[in-house]
Amino acid sequence: MRIALAQTNPLVGDLSGNAKRLLEACLKISHQTQGTPPALVVSPELSLWGYPPRDLLLSPEHLQQQSEALTQLQQGLRHALPQTALLVGMVEPAPDQQHPRLFNAAALVEANHWRVVARKQLLPTYDVFDESRYFRPADQPSVLSFEADGQDWRLGLTICEDLWVEDALQAQRLMGPDPVENLILEDVDLLLNLSASPYGRSKASIRHQLAARAAQRLDCPVIYVNQVGGNDELVFDGGSFVVAATGEVELQLPSCREAIAYWNSTHRSAGLPANTTDSSESADHEQLFQALVLGVRDYADKCGFQRALLGLSGGIDSALVAVIATAALGADRVQALLMPSPWSSIGSIDDAEALSKRLGISTTTVPIQGLMHGFEATLTPALDQAPSGVTAENLQSRIRGTLLMAVANQQGQLLLSTGNKSELAVGYCTLYGDMNGGLAVIGDLYKSTVFSLCRWLDSPDAMGCRKKLGLLEHDDLIGLEILNKPPSAELRPDQQDSDSLPDYATLDPLLKDLIEKHSSGAQLIAAGHDAADVKRIEQLFRRAEFKRRQAPPVLKVSQQAFGTGWRLPIASR
Amino acid sequence: MRIALAQTNPLVGDLSGNAKRLLEACLKISHQTQGTPPALVVSPELSLWGYPPRDLLLSPEHLQQQSEALTQLQQGLRHALPQTALLVGMVEPAPDQQHPRLFNAAALVEANHWRVVARKQLLPTYDVFDESRYFRPADQPSVLSFEADGQDWRLGLTICEDLWVEDALQAQRLMGPDPVENLILEDVDLLLNLSASPYGRSKASIRHQLAARAAQRLDCPVIYVNQVGGNDELVFDGGSFVVAATGEVELQLPSCREAIAYWNSTHRSAGLPANTTDSSESADHEQLFQALVLGVRDYADKCGFQRALLGLSGGIDSALVAVIATAALGADRVQALLMPSPWSSIGSIDDAEALSKRLGISTTTVPIQGLMHGFEATLTPALDQAPSGVTAENLQSRIRGTLLMAVANQQGQLLLSTGNKSELAVGYCTLYGDMNGGLAVIGDLYKSTVFSLCRWLDSPDAMGCRKKLGLLEHDDLIGLEILNKPPSAELRPDQQDSDSLPDYATLDPLLKDLIEKHSSGAQLIAAGHDAADVKRIEQLFRRAEFKRRQAPPVLKVSQQAFGTGWRLPIASR
Repeated sequence: MRIALAQTNPLVGDLSGNAKRLLEACLKISHQTQGTPPALVVSPELSLWGYPPRDLLLSPEHLQQQSEALTQLQQGLRHALPQTALLVGMVEPAPDQQHPRLFNAAALVEANHWRVVARKQLLPTYDVFDESRYFRPADQPSVLSFEADGQDWRLGLTICEDLWVEDALQAQRLMGPDPVENLILEDVDLLLNLSASPYGRSKASIRHQLAARAAQRLDCPVIYVNQVGGNDELVFDGGSFVVAATGEVELQLPSCREAIAYWNSTHRSAGLPANTTDSSESADHEQLFQALVLGVRDYADKCGFQRALLGLSGGIDSALVAVIATAALGADRVQALLMPSPWSSIGSIDDAEALSKRLGISTTTVPIQGLMHGFEATLTPALDQAPSGVTAENLQSRIRGTLLMAVANQQGQLLLSTGNKSELAVGYCTLYGDMNGGLAVIGDLYKSTVFSLCRWLDSPDAMGCRKKLGLLEHDDLIGLEILNKPPSAELRPDQQDSDSLPDYATLDPLLKDLIEKHSSGAQLIAAGHDAADVKRIEQLFRRAEFKRRQAPPVLKVSQQAFGTGWRLPIASR
Repeated sequence: MRIALAQTNPLVGDLSGNAKRLLEACLKISHQTQGTPPALVVSPELSLWGYPPRDLLLSPEHLQQQSEALTQLQQGLRHALPQTALLVGMVEPAPDQQHPRLFNAAALVEANHWRVVARKQLLPTYDVFDESRYFRPADQPSVLSFEADGQDWRLGLTICEDLWVEDALQAQRLMGPDPVENLILEDVDLLLNLSASPYGRSKASIRHQLAARAAQRLDCPVIYVNQVGGNDELVFDGGSFVVAATGEVELQLPSCREAIAYWNSTHRSAGLPANTTDSSESADHEQLFQALVLGVRDYADKCGFQRALLGLSGGIDSALVAVIATAALGADRVQALLMPSPWSSIGSIDDAEALSKRLGISTTTVPIQGLMHGFEATLTPALDQAPSGVTAENLQSRIRGTLLMAVANQQGQLLLSTGNKSELAVGYCTLYGDMNGGLAVIGDLYKSTVFSLCRWLDSPDAMGCRKKLGLLEHDDLIGLEILNKPPSAELRPDQQDSDSLPDYATLDPLLKDLIEKHSSGAQLIAAGHDAADVKRIEQLFRRAEFKRRQAPPVLKVSQQAFGTGWRLPIASR
């Protein structure tokens, strides 16, 4: 039997458009396999909806559109691939009105009809996932009897989390059945998994290992098809694959782009061990960079923005965002605004201009000194004093934020926010100022990760990646001036981040424990961290919750990002 | 048997402080009932944590603090009420490590020990509720054998949603067991319900009816104890009560404040039918006003703000917020900033000043014309033209937003945001401008509700309520000038809301269907609404999602508010 893996990039909620995308994949498959079409095309979880559809699942009209899209698929398939069945991710309404009303399901679409053939058993309801808000768990495994090439196949069907049942490989195992275990008795010939698994560092390797374990337990190959594309804060990296019954990877699809590939049950290739993903630091950086690029590109394109804008300060954060934006959209779609103040160093302005030149993006310079004086003059009578301290620093940031929004409004651009995770964590950022933007591109990167990613970008290891992105004209991209500059917000004379914060080498590991392990200050002190540092950082961290609540969507690349998967009260202890 | 209902106002996550609050209630009970202490004190759902604790439930330190708080309660009870047991809402960790790890439970604390006696069966996972993210459902009902006055009592124990099992009374019935039905066989003498049920219009009456149904089905009284207090966007209105086996209300606690009351099994009072809550329009407005006042007061107090600031335009929205803030905090804790532009009408400035005088709040005037010119001068070279259209309007709003934040920063005030739900729905508001603030006070009130609530405030019906709040010195509070003014953002000469939007009488019902029923434009047109209006409004509504994502917490008073219970993708169709 021949199976096509269709790694598609849907637009969330666009049922008709996504059906069209799936049919385009089918047409491509038809052309690529003339005469010997595959028996089955497998697409990702909820491929008709795009994942995650969130509360669009509560919309009666979208459910109606799903019915129409399934008919559209069926009719289109009759023309494109009349002998082929298409496995498509969709939702199935339950017959009663109790809440939740849906199953996360898969339908087998054929030229003459379609029917639901699988329902998800394990519903992730943690981090960014809210599946129990919408879905009921299926209470039994799904097996599909499928005839191909005159043979009867028993296909085990699982959806995403159904495969995540190995305590040793994952941080948390969902309570509930073991869908793989329950398929052992069903004697399946092949296991399919329709996934929408977002990018995370080292996650590709975990997916391989989970599939390999399932293959070994069921003694059959596993076909894993993952969604690709950025949807708001989530980046789905694709990387679909097939593992043989031995656990070896037989087929590997690319990450971070749409792709189609074929697996043949009778021609097995040699394969690689499932855990031999390239786990070098360079490969890790490349994956991270590609995920961020995909996140920006899809957010802009799916929201309909032709161009993006960012404030370029000469510091490393905005430099990295400029590189990502350029890689994502092309230099002609990116504009940088330089907004020097009396506290900006000459170096910063020069560095920002030199970087823009290397990237080929246009720049506009708008000095803010006049507006700083304007606000001081306007506010002094009201405050009985000139704005001072943090108020004055915030004012500069908010003047810049307002200028950025004015330019973006007038020119119809997407404003990219350039703050990093360390800043968001301790509130070293200004709400309605530098936090402004439609998307926080590096808001899930600690400052130390920003440094290491930039160092990688300027290293020989990144040459291949930069070549693909057309960013190879200069030896340096970020450049030593920016890389080696001590971090500073430049909001007062000679200010440096280290005036207010511990070194990032001290700060970031503390933050990581506070955020990813929900550790307490007491635990961190017990673990040997400096007590004064810990107390100060923990207080800053807790107090900044109100800022994070109003932050733009943050591209999620870590296990625990700020955003929809971070749900803390503001008024609390 | 005598039972005390302790309607407490916890601070979320403050385990030790909440234990102290519960012990203070016990001390009060001890004083009030000298010699004849109640056998049992009943407190709300998760009364040790405050509801909703959200991701604080994932924090190992908070779980550790719960153990300490329970010991603290037990020791305190030994002194305050040694003969009394206290039923307290808490979480119980499961013995294994699978996800989710907790039960939403209740413990019986006595002078010498404590033990878990109830687990919640129905876990709300819809709207603002995420209980399946944290909790496992219990698989059987909880019955407590309890000795009091030498008699054995069988107490049925339920937690909040466990009582919401009447299809006819609620919008959605959770799939799962019927915890009331399952108690019928248990032959209980009394049903207790520990709740954390947020305020909603007509919800008090529904709670009464649900309890009355359960009382009739079980043929026993029902004691319902609800949390009170504002926690971020949610306002819990208390209103705890007891219904007799007949369904009649025997005891009713006040809404929107802490309270203690006693129920005695042997002295039954006459009671009122369960559905005779005062459902007049005036009572409805009073409840709504009180909920908003509680929400502002608790947000300010629980976040530690001594003072609040708001921008006062002379329009009805900011007028209402000023009244609510004054009622919540007292006039001396509220400051209004007047920020006239060349497009502000003289009337608006006078009206804002007159209102401030009536309320007794201080005002500061900061004209923005100079800054408007400053931004125009700064931006014109960058844009090759003066900022125009929406860009220019947004600039005025952002200048005001920046001034408000500067004053709030310098003076340590909570900035209250004054936008209404109609604006948030269609995006008729400026991100980083008038949307600025720590709390969106009337962000869940359609403009037509703003009008009707203001009309009520100025009506004789509101006199009792205004007297309680010390707002009676003047006949008018809002005043006819503000009430009768055509709505306008005053961002350009002679602008009126009706230039860009249909009348609110047309707009608001459309929005209500779009928001609360997830209706589509097609459905609304089919229902007879004007097609051109519907298309325009639906497009504005969908496009404003990115603004809502960055809005401050919105005090929730409707069935479907923007905020944590509104989860829509941005890049979508």
